[in-house]
Amino acid sequence: MLTVDRYRQEFEDYLSQNIVKQEPANLYDPMVYILGLGGKRVRPVLVLMAAEILGSDSKKALDAALAIEVFHNFSLVHDDIMDDAPLRRGEQTVHERWDINTGILSGDAMLIKAYQLFEKYPGETFRQLAELFSSTAIKVCEGQQYDMDFEVQEKVSIDDYLKMIEYKTAVLVGASLKMGAIVAEASAENCDRIYEFGRLLGIAFQLQDDYLDAFGDPDSFGKQVGGDIIENKKTFLYLSSLQHAASREAMQLEHLYSINPPDPSSKVETVKGLFESSGAAELTRKEIEKYTTKAFEVLEELQIPEERKKPLYNFGKGLMDRQV
Amino acid sequence: MLTVDRYRQEFEDYLSQNIVKQEPANLYDPMVYILGLGGKRVRPVLVLMAAEILGSDSKKALDAALAIEVFHNFSLVHDDIMDDAPLRRGEQTVHERWDINTGILSGDAMLIKAYQLFEKYPGETFRQLAELFSSTAIKVCEGQQYDMDFEVQEKVSIDDYLKMIEYKTAVLVGASLKMGAIVAEASAENCDRIYEFGRLLGIAFQLQDDYLDAFGDPDSFGKQVGGDIIENKKTFLYLSSLQHAASREAMQLEHLYSINPPDPSSKVETVKGLFESSGAAELTRKEIEKYTTKAFEVLEELQIPEERKKPLYNFGKGLMDRQV
Repeated sequence: MLTVDRYRQEFEDYLSQNIVKQEPANLYDPMVYILGLGGKRVRPVLVLMAAEILGSDSKKALDAALAIEVFHNFSLVHDDIMDDAPLRRGEQTVHERWDINTGILSGDAMLIKAYQLFEKYPGETFRQLAELFSSTAIKVCEGQQYDMDFEVQEKVSIDDYLKMIEYKTAVLVGASLKMGAIVAEASAENCDRIYEFGRLLGIAFQLQDDYLDAFGDPDSFGKQVGGDIIENKKTFLYLSSLQHAASREAMQLEHLYSINPPDPSSKVETVKGLFESSGAAELTRKEIEKYTTKAFEVLEELQIPEERKKPLYNFGKGLMDRQV
Repeated sequence: MLTVDRYRQEFEDYLSQNIVKQEPANLYDPMVYILGLGGKRVRPVLVLMAAEILGSDSKKALDAALAIEVFHNFSLVHDDIMDDAPLRRGEQTVHERWDINTGILSGDAMLIKAYQLFEKYPGETFRQLAELFSSTAIKVCEGQQYDMDFEVQEKVSIDDYLKMIEYKTAVLVGASLKMGAIVAEASAENCDRIYEFGRLLGIAFQLQDDYLDAFGDPDSFGKQVGGDIIENKKTFLYLSSLQHAASREAMQLEHLYSINPPDPSSKVETVKGLFESSGAAELTRKEIEKYTTKAFEVLEELQIPEERKKPLYNFGKGLMDRQV
């Protein structure tokens, strides 16, 4: 935990030195604003951690870490426009504080800026980082597209859903770790393994996020409990309930996901009951466990001394030990 | 001219083989759509031409040419959202045919796709192309931001305006030529010179576009003559008139640029008269001439046999010989 705090501080310092105001203000102020809103900095911390674990100085990985965080924030700015979201980390979103055009164009500039940060690295490292970044970024776009498609699509399979969260969330976690490994000039095998650890952990994390959205402790879960149910979001819990519930319950669930009552509390309670009675809640817990276990198995295969894996192991444990 | 047609055909063939439908359809269909709307393909033709002039097979430059065209169309998709434009090349814009969210996300994917096209090139070529691309792309965003800023900004200097058109339009023309030169592994000096030729020609072209918008032949000019005046756009003609007109005429011009009459024909005629009487029309013609001459002077310094420069010379002449 101490290590994570150290990486986070190292990253925050670097961020504040490198993401500064410049002209034209309307293009760059939103970048400084959104990156200054904070957040847990999970992805850049993972870049630094992976670099150090695989034998490099974490300082060498700071530009890659910044690229990942700039990209992540680019995707938040554009996603917030698409979702018409007024708030981000408790503050106004970019398109609310400025306007939609500013959000679009500043986001574009952030995406380009992320690529430019890789220019600090020599030849082959630059190429590997840029290629991994592009293939990851395009998957993030595809994941966002699938997510929007699913809102209006009648039939969504569980495999479709898992692919969507993998693309939208998990590949960026894997890529963060792999970027640290690339900077450390780790072997191709270790690069692939650490990516796979991140990808699996990312899927587990997103499934857990879905689960906690319904069953989390309202006091400790950051968001409104039941938010996904209120918004009729087709999560793993919902899709798995539909698949396993008796036909009457499945019809009831589909009906509840077609309405938007002004007071949603009874809908939320009924849906949660159906998630439990269908066995979907239990199945989701098992699925989270399955991905988490797989992630730690891949971590074991990483060819470095066991002792060095500890920070990653602790990080994964910390992430998955949120109050269920 | 024959050469240009050959490059264009070569490019069209490559485009139709490489930009094809894929899943998710809502992400990639708009890319296929906008790139299929045609256009003169000026930028990719310049990439191919520069590569061949500097000693390479134009085929080797096709991926760089495609990257430039994909990027250009990305910027059209996002700009059309920002400008709320219903039509592009006589057809519906992407956000009109689909919706704004689709326009934003497809555009993002196109920007990433452009970077991926450089991956076809080996080591140092890849790096040089990606770096030039990033620095150009960020300037294009800055230029678009300045353009939007100028709409609401009271005072715009002529230098500000020239910088805006340089960033928004001219640097991409320069970069197109330089990319061909990089693919051909031309000397750093020749890379810089061909870039400079494109940059200067790009500024001349944009100034001429502004000029023709007011004084062009309605039959041969592609757009509505007087469009910039109707939209109160602060072009070189306007800014130069303000600077050189007597104070009464300057005030009249500022007044005319603060109104939006339902029938704009008398406003357009009065403004055109002021552009002439202030000397701004003449000054603009001289400025176009100045940039065109400078461009051809730089072309002379290109260290290749004179004979090989012909296609570039003809291209520049053809571009600037539009009916004034």
